[in-house]
Amino acid sequence: MAALAAFFLVLLAAPVAMAGVVDFCVADLAAAKTPSGYPCKKESALTVDDFVFSGLGKAANTTNIIKAAVTPAFDAQYPAVNGLGISVARLDLAAGGVIPLHVHPNGNELLVVTQGRIVAGFISSGNSVYYKTLNKGDAMVFPQGLLHFQINGGGTPAVAIVTFSSSNPGLQITSIALFGSSFPSKLVSGTTFLSPAEVQRLKAVLGGTN
Amino acid sequence: MAALAAFFLVLLAAPVAMAGVVDFCVADLAAAKTPSGYPCKKESALTVDDFVFSGLGKAANTTNIIKAAVTPAFDAQYPAVNGLGISVARLDLAAGGVIPLHVHPNGNELLVVTQGRIVAGFISSGNSVYYKTLNKGDAMVFPQGLLHFQINGGGTPAVAIVTFSSSNPGLQITSIALFGSSFPSKLVSGTTFLSPAEVQRLKAVLGGTN
Amino acid sequence: MAALAAFFLVLLAAPVAMAGVVDFCVADLAAAKTPSGYPCKKESALTVDDFVFSGLGKAANTTNIIKAAVTPAFDAQYPAVNGLGISVARLDLAAGGVIPLHVHPNGNELLVVTQGRIVAGFISSGNSVYYKTLNKGDAMVFPQGLLHFQINGGGTPAVAIVTFSSSNPGLQITSIALFGSSFPSKLVSGTTFLSPAEVQRLKAVLGGTN
Amino acid sequence: MAALAAFFLVLLAAPVAMAGVVDFCVADLAAAKTPSGYPCKKESALTVDDFVFSGLGKAANTTNIIKAAVTPAFDAQYPAVNGLGISVARLDLAAGGVIPLHVHPNGNELLVVTQGRIVAGFISSGNSVYYKTLNKGDAMVFPQGLLHFQINGGGTPAVAIVTFSSSNPGLQITSIALFGSSFPSKLVSGTTFLSPAEVQRLKAVLGGTN
Amino acid sequence: MAALAAFFLVLLAAPVAMAGVVDFCVADLAAAKTPSGYPCKKESALTVDDFVFSGLGKAANTTNIIKAAVTPAFDAQYPAVNGLGISVARLDLAAGGVIPLHVHPNGNELLVVTQGRIVAGFISSGNSVYYKTLNKGDAMVFPQGLLHFQINGGGTPAVAIVTFSSSNPGLQITSIALFGSSFPSKLVSGTTFLSPAEVQRLKAVLGGTN
Amino acid sequence: MAALAAFFLVLLAAPVAMAGVVDFCVADLAAAKTPSGYPCKKESALTVDDFVFSGLGKAANTTNIIKAAVTPAFDAQYPAVNGLGISVARLDLAAGGVIPLHVHPNGNELLVVTQGRIVAGFISSGNSVYYKTLNKGDAMVFPQGLLHFQINGGGTPAVAIVTFSSSNPGLQITSIALFGSSFPSKLVSGTTFLSPAEVQRLKAVLGGTN
Repeated sequence: MAALAAFFLVLLAAPVAMAGVVDFCVADLAAAKTPSGYPCKKESALTVDDFVFSGLGKAANTTNIIKAAVTPAFDAQYPAVNGLGISVARLDLAAGGVIPLHVHPNGNELLVVTQGRIVAGFISSGNSVYYKTLNKGDAMVFPQGLLHFQINGGGTPAVAIVTFSSSNPGLQITSIALFGSSFPSKLVSGTTFLSPAEVQRLKAVLGGTN
Repeated sequence: MAALAAFFLVLLAAPVAMAGVVDFCVADLAAAKTPSGYPCKKESALTVDDFVFSGLGKAANTTNIIKAAVTPAFDAQYPAVNGLGISVARLDLAAGGVIPLHVHPNGNELLVVTQGRIVAGFISSGNSVYYKTLNKGDAMVFPQGLLHFQINGGGTPAVAIVTFSSSNPGLQITSIALFGSSFPSKLVSGTTFLSPAEVQRLKAVLGGTN
Repeated sequence: MAALAAFFLVLLAAPVAMAGVVDFCVADLAAAKTPSGYPCKKESALTVDDFVFSGLGKAANTTNIIKAAVTPAFDAQYPAVNGLGISVARLDLAAGGVIPLHVHPNGNELLVVTQGRIVAGFISSGNSVYYKTLNKGDAMVFPQGLLHFQINGGGTPAVAIVTFSSSNPGLQITSIALFGSSFPSKLVSGTTFLSPAEVQRLKAVLGGTN
Repeated sequence: MAALAAFFLVLLAAPVAMAGVVDFCVADLAAAKTPSGYPCKKESALTVDDFVFSGLGKAANTTNIIKAAVTPAFDAQYPAVNGLGISVARLDLAAGGVIPLHVHPNGNELLVVTQGRIVAGFISSGNSVYYKTLNKGDAMVFPQGLLHFQINGGGTPAVAIVTFSSSNPGLQITSIALFGSSFPSKLVSGTTFLSPAEVQRLKAVLGGTN
Repeated sequence: MAALAAFFLVLLAAPVAMAGVVDFCVADLAAAKTPSGYPCKKESALTVDDFVFSGLGKAANTTNIIKAAVTPAFDAQYPAVNGLGISVARLDLAAGGVIPLHVHPNGNELLVVTQGRIVAGFISSGNSVYYKTLNKGDAMVFPQGLLHFQINGGGTPAVAIVTFSSSNPGLQITSIALFGSSFPSKLVSGTTFLSPAEVQRLKAVLGGTN
Repeated sequence: MAALAAFFLVLLAAPVAMAGVVDFCVADLAAAKTPSGYPCKKESALTVDDFVFSGLGKAANTTNIIKAAVTPAFDAQYPAVNGLGISVARLDLAAGGVIPLHVHPNGNELLVVTQGRIVAGFISSGNSVYYKTLNKGDAMVFPQGLLHFQINGGGTPAVAIVTFSSSNPGLQITSIALFGSSFPSKLVSGTTFLSPAEVQRLKAVLGGTN
């Protein structure tokens, strides 16, 4: 009966080996990225640990000013998601914690509350505002490119698993982009209607230059 | 200063209204699906509750033979994910529970263990086997179309949040497809090498016909 | 020789008519949109005017507070671009004019200056700032989902043709989303670090509520 | 053991029915097409015959001036390919038969010779010419949007199975587009360098007007 | 008149050479694959033979236990299909031959019978079974990720041309994945309901370990 | 307050640096292209000038036989559009100028007249002809893979900004492909119905061989 097993090698190998089958594409982070993601490591070099990411189970340190932390498992941290159109992160919000208004330029987000209570919302292109207090087990979507936020909605630590429709959703926190960068203060106020004084104040707070 | 607010109506409306902006597409489940998903409900009819799904926080009933349960939030249950390339489900595995070998024909899966311990794995096209015991906070990916499974890896209930790179990943449980359907027993054994007796036995167990 | 002409009807019609050929999909705006765009009008109902949009040649009225105007030709205004992954708009900037910081959630932008001088820029996810004074004939790209702006860079009216990699790029002007919507002032300040006083001031200027 | 079979109904149905699973999308040709294809018929209305197309086994009538015929199984003829990114046709070339230069605007083509000998080729954007005599069992690809042709390369009937990376590849035969349409003769010669006399001659042959 | 020819070099070359035009992307198999396929060979290095695959005309050796053989022309064997979203294979089924239940994780399949008779079918996510005896010239589709099979339906050799909506559809034969791999017997029976004895028997037949 | 700025480095860097964020992918033209475009340059090596293309403001030299010129800013000339699904070109038509019938195999085109008058049109797969005289400010779309042309429609120079839904739309000018290449004269006439004499004449004019 060894013949049958042998046959399948034949079936699969046929005239030329089907060695090129790639159902996944674990990123070779040392190679240059392309518009579709990183080049793949060879399957022969992989073990199960390439497909597993550990570290979403631990509370991150939220002893900071926003009392919040994000633990990403995007392509750079979790090369197995390369090319798969999905990634994940853990969100920790201590009491009083907040993830400031931000945008993911490269993917949609789906958040699931796993502990505590979170007030979350987004603003549509039409400037409609959608926000709600989410409890444990509630999910909410935040479409790609739209401003959204998450705030601890209770007096105790809150945790969420946030997933994305991209192996690398990107992240642009509006206030950091404006006040924590080298974007000149004059251009900030000129393109936002914010007063020069307020811009100056926040530049100082958030470490921006110019 | 009311003029400024008024202006933006002008800017946004311009010569013709930009009413067609659709950054999300909450499914109208009553309409016929297309290859890209369901037609969209009008934004004017939406409230925040259209974007929120509740019910992933409760343990599902696992008093069944596989001691497991899946609570999906796919497009049919959670119309807000329509068109967004993402969806989610809760997985409950009681002690001894198992999600039998299955395939998602329409999307990649990313699982995060939120409670307990889960043995999970998949088999690649090249017939390599990747499996591991996952602890709380571990994540693992299961590529589209490849056989995979999850088993409770401890003596206590385990829970996972499983997300997908599709608003409707689909699900084909191999043994149900073979033994719980009308697929004729003769064809099952003829296309799987299983003995006719074993096929008959499982047809009876799983309710298949023919 | 009429036989040859007749044959091609045969070739094209063959056993069954190839009536389903759709190389374009002029939007039926009265039908519900899908994630891939609007359903198509029948080709038999189309004339050349369905493919032509007029109105990008005229200066728009910039007698407003930002001294600027946008004339879009997106799917809602120009149904022929539906499904084609492209659209266009005219941008007018009077002396002193500015298009405030904004994001296109659904597409990349490519701007070409056709008159005057424009200072344009964007901020990357990594908070790098890229901006420059563009002269007539200069082009600049603004990636999807990233904050960008345009300002008249001279003392005379400036005009640009802006095109997008989407038939409906969407538009979210940051300050309008924050201060011209119903997003509660407390949430604005809580998620941006802006002072409550500044938020209140801008809510009044831009017509926001709550 | 009926309990196990019953359970899977529970697993699959869970809190809300997973009725929205759509792994295929057999076209409802009576409904308006969208940019992603036709709306889907309900799976409950389908039988195996919806997935089967018959008629590629018979030689088509090649008693015509080009001594050739195409039997398409695109979405309009074979609704099951809707949304699947694939379609097929049978090509018959009698001795002396020719499929004139043409383009498929919506998909790549892969031809397999199943009988006889075919001279086939295409011209690249860089104006390189690739052509060869193909024998039974030879395959050749013709990229989307590039001019290509097939000619009987022997003295006996030739047959090919041609497949496409689109459920509706489209077809534009250059000479029919120019000389068999209402494209004005003056514009034809003005945009092709062909002499007005040759244009007039071919307009008469191919039934064009204007 | 040489000037006109010269001009087009100018038109095509313009200020900067349009050397980057890539309408096809013949795979450089020596380079690392990316999620979108292999890097391209330079067009200047190509000849017509790069676009032609020979070998689908010969019957493959079916002197094996399943009395069947597959001759693939996927990206690894036929580098020209790289990036084109299409590929092809020849299927030979001797009398009594069978292609066991399998899945293509990366693409839809369209089969055309070119000789003999084939019983083919698939099982949907909803566990509906679709199968039929196909005659010469019949086509059938098998959606991505769903279990399907082909069996010789007559007493004489049968042949089919099978095409795919992917340059590399992948292949997972269920029984080989389960019984011809290193997937532990205990996990096989635990995730399929098959009896340990039957698993052991098939492991022996198909060469599996553990 | 420096602590807050410091925090965001923490937030963004988290356990592992989010260095893999790629919202754009400026082409490294020295590397091999992939089906999704060129590999990306590292963001750290970029300046604003990588995102800016200059040269669409100057009239190109139209002292040639077609009295026309195209100045492309595709990926090869403007590496910033790589991966963005958009590109642009300037079209100059002197009095009497013409862009001969051509096809873009890789993208849809959207033309905006910025000076003068242009007669433009295309022919659909169904051989319907759509053409019109466009004035300054008029836009027209030309779907991927379909024959189209542009002619100066007035007695004065005309200019258009033409954009594409691809970073590299490709270009195949029908008469150059047929008469300016090595495509053998016999095959040209055999696949177009053109007389051998006319083919010979145009081969001489346009520099074709064979």
